[in-house]
Amino acid sequence: MSEQYEVRLAGAGGQGLLLAGLILAEAAAIYDGKNAAQTQSYGPEARGGASRSEVIISDEEIDYPKVTESDLLLALSQEACDKYVRDLKRDGVLIVDTTHVHHVPSVRAYKLPITRIAEEATGRRITANIVALGVIVSLTKIVSRRAIEAAVSDRVPKGTQELNLKALAAGFEAAKGLMEPAK
Amino acid sequence: MSEQYEVRLAGAGGQGLLLAGLILAEAAAIYDGKNAAQTQSYGPEARGGASRSEVIISDEEIDYPKVTESDLLLALSQEACDKYVRDLKRDGVLIVDTTHVHHVPSVRAYKLPITRIAEEATGRRITANIVALGVIVSLTKIVSRRAIEAAVSDRVPKGTQELNLKALAAGFEAAKGLMEPAK
Repeated sequence: MSEQYEVRLAGAGGQGLLLAGLILAEAAAIYDGKNAAQTQSYGPEARGGASRSEVIISDEEIDYPKVTESDLLLALSQEACDKYVRDLKRDGVLIVDTTHVHHVPSVRAYKLPITRIAEEATGRRITANIVALGVIVSLTKIVSRRAIEAAVSDRVPKGTQELNLKALAAGFEAAKGLMEPAK
Repeated sequence: MSEQYEVRLAGAGGQGLLLAGLILAEAAAIYDGKNAAQTQSYGPEARGGASRSEVIISDEEIDYPKVTESDLLLALSQEACDKYVRDLKRDGVLIVDTTHVHHVPSVRAYKLPITRIAEEATGRRITANIVALGVIVSLTKIVSRRAIEAAVSDRVPKGTQELNLKALAAGFEAAKGLMEPAK
């Protein structure tokens, strides 16, 4: 991992991207002892139903919390994929939810039916955000597994911890079966 | 209001500053049609129990979501007040919760027992964050009253809307009695 790692989580409103961003930032800061910043931006596109959350994780203090070129893009909608893929670094990690993204504008992508995996693992499509965290952490190791589990438990609604930890585990499991995309 | 308005909400963990920041940003963007960004930063100070949330509201797109010199500082703890008052603009607005802040390092401050007002209005000290939003919006008009009420209703836990709208109204009411601080 380079000194500062920039993650963009993008999709539609209601997909829980704000919560996913907070969990990732808290895993890094509270449980792994790093610096982290989470930014939620709202603009005209928010009124169209789009949503994005950005997380920066760093060993150093974070001076500039804006993600410009991201190291990782998670795209949970076609619109988000099309819009943000151009801001991904050349060697950045692209993860797409093939439940919603049918045209992947890069051969270098990790493709997984994240929402379908969520539905199969927990019966709740709404846990796709947590499945996605499992995939991200498994592929990148930007935070420890222990840290992300603890942060998920802290932040999800009381009574849903077990369900969400199951979703997280399903994400880790699904990522194991992935081949690294062609360079 | 200048083109870009920068708000820093600072205090201790558990005072609901993240939620307050999200509500303020969503009031501006979703209900008042502006651009907004909310940033939550986590560093070594987070592990000491400090917490802060920053919100930028702008008519234009926000390129740089970091608050450096804030237009407004809400301080819900002595530590937060001491630390961030130096980053307030010279003509910035300082609002302190005198329930927790006993030494105010500026004559130019709006002083209110925000946590005590919360307790009196709703019986719940935890609604101090929402009382604070009422005070901020009443004093600055950075978002409309209709927008902040709608955003509070959206974001607070189901079943607590009425309680929190009461806290918000108490904040508006308390701010009315304030004199503008000496220049």
